[in-house]
Amino acid sequence: MASAGVASERLQVLSRQLTAGIATPTNLPVNVVELRNFLIHDNKEMREAIFDFLKDDLYKPNHYQGLMEFREQTLQRLKKFVVQKFFSVRDYTNDPRRFIAALECLMYADYSLAIKAGVHFTLCGGTIAKLGTAYHHAKYLPGIDDLTLPGCFGMTELGHGSNVMGIETTAVYDKAAQQFVINTPNDEASKYWIGGSGQHGKVCAVFAQLTVNGQWQGPHVFVVRIRDDSGRLMPGVRIADQGPKMGLNGVDNGRIWFDSVRVAREDMLDAFASVSPDGTYSSSIPSVSQRFGTVVGGLTTGRVLIAAGGVDAAKVALTIAIRYGCSRTQFGDRPIMDYVTHQARLLPPLAQTYALHLALGHLKGLMAAKRPADAKAIHVLSSGLKAAATWGRVEAMQDCRECCGGMGFLSANKIGPLMTDMNVDVTFEGDNTVMMQQVARSLLEDKSMLARGAPAVPAPGALAAGRATCSRTLQSLLGFRESALTAQVAGEMAAAAARAEGAAAKATASAAAFDRQLDVVVSIGWASVERFCHENFLKEVERAPVSLRPALASLAQLYALSRIQRSLAFYLTTGALNRDDAVALRAATANLYGSLTAGGPRCAAVQLCDAFGIPDHLLQAPIAFDWRKV
Amino acid sequence: MASAGVASERLQVLSRQLTAGIATPTNLPVNVVELRNFLIHDNKEMREAIFDFLKDDLYKPNHYQGLMEFREQTLQRLKKFVVQKFFSVRDYTNDPRRFIAALECLMYADYSLAIKAGVHFTLCGGTIAKLGTAYHHAKYLPGIDDLTLPGCFGMTELGHGSNVMGIETTAVYDKAAQQFVINTPNDEASKYWIGGSGQHGKVCAVFAQLTVNGQWQGPHVFVVRIRDDSGRLMPGVRIADQGPKMGLNGVDNGRIWFDSVRVAREDMLDAFASVSPDGTYSSSIPSVSQRFGTVVGGLTTGRVLIAAGGVDAAKVALTIAIRYGCSRTQFGDRPIMDYVTHQARLLPPLAQTYALHLALGHLKGLMAAKRPADAKAIHVLSSGLKAAATWGRVEAMQDCRECCGGMGFLSANKIGPLMTDMNVDVTFEGDNTVMMQQVARSLLEDKSMLARGAPAVPAPGALAAGRATCSRTLQSLLGFRESALTAQVAGEMAAAAARAEGAAAKATASAAAFDRQLDVVVSIGWASVERFCHENFLKEVERAPVSLRPALASLAQLYALSRIQRSLAFYLTTGALNRDDAVALRAATANLYGSLTAGGPRCAAVQLCDAFGIPDHLLQAPIAFDWRKV
Repeated sequence: MASAGVASERLQVLSRQLTAGIATPTNLPVNVVELRNFLIHDNKEMREAIFDFLKDDLYKPNHYQGLMEFREQTLQRLKKFVVQKFFSVRDYTNDPRRFIAALECLMYADYSLAIKAGVHFTLCGGTIAKLGTAYHHAKYLPGIDDLTLPGCFGMTELGHGSNVMGIETTAVYDKAAQQFVINTPNDEASKYWIGGSGQHGKVCAVFAQLTVNGQWQGPHVFVVRIRDDSGRLMPGVRIADQGPKMGLNGVDNGRIWFDSVRVAREDMLDAFASVSPDGTYSSSIPSVSQRFGTVVGGLTTGRVLIAAGGVDAAKVALTIAIRYGCSRTQFGDRPIMDYVTHQARLLPPLAQTYALHLALGHLKGLMAAKRPADAKAIHVLSSGLKAAATWGRVEAMQDCRECCGGMGFLSANKIGPLMTDMNVDVTFEGDNTVMMQQVARSLLEDKSMLARGAPAVPAPGALAAGRATCSRTLQSLLGFRESALTAQVAGEMAAAAARAEGAAAKATASAAAFDRQLDVVVSIGWASVERFCHENFLKEVERAPVSLRPALASLAQLYALSRIQRSLAFYLTTGALNRDDAVALRAATANLYGSLTAGGPRCAAVQLCDAFGIPDHLLQAPIAFDWRKV
Repeated sequence: MASAGVASERLQVLSRQLTAGIATPTNLPVNVVELRNFLIHDNKEMREAIFDFLKDDLYKPNHYQGLMEFREQTLQRLKKFVVQKFFSVRDYTNDPRRFIAALECLMYADYSLAIKAGVHFTLCGGTIAKLGTAYHHAKYLPGIDDLTLPGCFGMTELGHGSNVMGIETTAVYDKAAQQFVINTPNDEASKYWIGGSGQHGKVCAVFAQLTVNGQWQGPHVFVVRIRDDSGRLMPGVRIADQGPKMGLNGVDNGRIWFDSVRVAREDMLDAFASVSPDGTYSSSIPSVSQRFGTVVGGLTTGRVLIAAGGVDAAKVALTIAIRYGCSRTQFGDRPIMDYVTHQARLLPPLAQTYALHLALGHLKGLMAAKRPADAKAIHVLSSGLKAAATWGRVEAMQDCRECCGGMGFLSANKIGPLMTDMNVDVTFEGDNTVMMQQVARSLLEDKSMLARGAPAVPAPGALAAGRATCSRTLQSLLGFRESALTAQVAGEMAAAAARAEGAAAKATASAAAFDRQLDVVVSIGWASVERFCHENFLKEVERAPVSLRPALASLAQLYALSRIQRSLAFYLTTGALNRDDAVALRAATANLYGSLTAGGPRCAAVQLCDAFGIPDHLLQAPIAFDWRKV
């Protein structure tokens, strides 16, 4: 034991330092209108038109109805929406930003509507648009656009969620009939969780293992009619309604079995592979796994929509909770937002939401540019941002809900029911743990990065020396964590492989080492996303009009500081930061809290939320306006 | 920058150490039956009888119904339950453990039912039992027991949630009529969030500021009829239904205004204060604030029930998720529970759930013993455990839901809807942030503790020297954090006071210093709960039959290690742990993960869940049995 006297002194010094560095808060200027325009990367007019359209009474929430009424209401909402023709399913490939923007807007009205639309347009329609060719486009896309052909996406099976390559549904080519026979060999191979299939779906993009002339060719996609025009199940198709969920009950999920269902040869989506009438299989991509990777890799739009939905939901919750926190008083006239506990729960998520919004803007830009060279970056970025945006949303919304007290539990105040609906996003379109692994894998496969080995450890003391507000210092710390963790896992894998004999054993040993450090692997994913988001944030600050830079730079700084704070133990154990840095980190964060909340109900934090531009009729929550008049 | 070579070497050493300390997992013996008995502290037969009664079809979940049907169903469920007379409201004071046990069991069927029963029996009935005297007991308790008088609890007002002392509803004594006149002076003073008042409540325990002969006496409680026997509102009572909530929709919350409602003199609860017919006020407690403290301080049972509900809900979710994790395979035959990411999400919450369950058992024992000297300990412990249990539950259930993938989102699998209903628990019966402050305040007011000053910092290296499995070392680390953080805040407060002139200014400065460090204050609360829970856990290991000790000791160790891991940055900055300790901590944790999960579907983790003793008909979730047969 160190002596009590020394320890006491040490703690006293620590204490004094904790408050010593905190400057008087200054109100941060925010030009709300200009910032709002800056944040909208694309399709401003269409977004406004959709928001305006959503004033229709049909889109007002009704929390009294039962499950079946809610499903019917969601269908009617979607029907009325498609009539407006704000966009077309063809935009999936032609104008991805327009496609994404239109679907993103729906979340503000109701997440069930957004997901029902998303499954129909993105997963089903987008798959046909992307993996199909002219025949499929002409045959199916008009019915997708006008909803006469409600679409489903038959990928996941009961036994195979994350492991899509392992699905068991079969498609065998019957040369004589020039048809594929789609079959569910056992219950675990039933298509599971298929959105829209429980009641309304009429067509389904079905993933099945293709066999032609006795030769297995891996998973391919077939357009299968599951109900006829009048809504009756097609022969050989069996569907069980999956019933109630914890949220998102406007979507009718179902489970599908195929009993030797026959599909015309032409209804296999053939952008990457086709079967000729005489049963000759051909594909531009020879290997089964590469082919499958190409098929699935192209379907990132859904993932981007999920990420955007998470970010947008966080915007809604933060706008409501921060406005409430700045107007709600307790124990006298002091607004609850004055308390550091409140600030620490709401302001880092605000900074993160900005960081993720801007990062998604960058990603959408990459998608719109359609450069083949960006394919891998799009895949990795969409995986990482999806995980970070949805995990971030879980935390942000829970904190928002708690910061509103009981008011946050009331449906009318929106946060509660929205977070329940959104809860699906952490596991669908790819479980977040698996998403983060994909980010890490891409780094671990990057030979040039690995060749550099473990990075130099930054010298400690930088933050304490006054560089806690230096964006380059913060960026370098975030980058160090990404490189160091990657080097750590890579080193473990290499060491394990070196101990094994023979190529197969080496591969197994390396994979086992990867698995043993799966928690670090997920941290690599986080570290990579954080490094990217901050780097991108700094570029956006540069790009922004001068008047917006102080506010954006403060948010970027808070984002970096709060992420470094979360990984403080990592920085302390590696020696990149020391105790004085920890003190400086806390002081710098407190300074930012002060400048974001100074000024009460018109403080910078409130204005930064206003800049998200959520119209009143979609914000809805009475406590976002005047809690005394709930 | 340190040289890249040195850094590289450092990281390599770190990497090797990470896996070096991990021993081969050994299967931990668990005697499920004996452990189950050990965990039931009281009322075993009644609990079994209630569980058995809940097999009735009326208690089967129905997720299809709308809000109004659900409320009616909840009322019918409660009606059928009270007929069984498993317990009486008089047990609130006579046999608190029986009272708590009976209500606790209901959560397993439905949390709306548990809360509707809890408001009626605990908040209304218990208040009458505790703060009333013979007259009130005779007049009201029979109607509480048989539900002919559904009860509400009128404390919270729109403008005053956490600040109960600041409520504005008035009760003025009218000597001529020998009545109190209860009045709501403005909308912010309306009683808000009053459970059971929206539709069914007939009587309400109303908190109001009492004035007798022009003299204000602070908040007192009055029993007010709000509806007559036929369910019509009483004259002067206005109630607005608060409508849908994010969960818990079986409970009808309402908002109440009183327009000069007259209440007989006898209907003021008079255990601590009374008003004679001629308007003479008398109380055994002279100060308004002390009197109020006594009144509110006695109402800890509700808080204990909330804490127990949180722990029990975590048991349900963990049982389902761990069973599923040990049987669900993906990418081959390997169960997903084999992955360290899965273990890290489910096993620390399992250990925490055991720790909290045992701590609550201790607290219930204190309540049953009814020693006046324990009053403060009961207040502090119930506050801290309520916050820790409910915040812990939020995290545990979210992780369980995610670890079950989409299955966790399906209502049939119970975790999802249960976590939505339970979400209320972090802010009701006291916001968790405020609860943790109360724990910290009691430490900061402990003169003898403060006199000792800052504690000695434990010498680093203990964990690395093989003492990561030493319970005394772990306990001393947990205790150090509690003392060090308390000393830190106390030092700040004292220093601020020293800088001010005059008693009033010193008090203000001290309070401001407390507020500035509110985030540390909340950490004190956590640290105190963790220190207590581990200390208590070790005593329970001692008390347990020898055959149970290995499993319980492993859980206690995992609990301590995972809590220390969370505060690792604190330990590193104070110098109580170093980098080698961090490595040892991780290795020791990995060892425990291994021994808890070795053995597949019958591993120790599954058996430790089985020992919670949740019967199949209340566990319900198909994935807890055979996910292939959902």
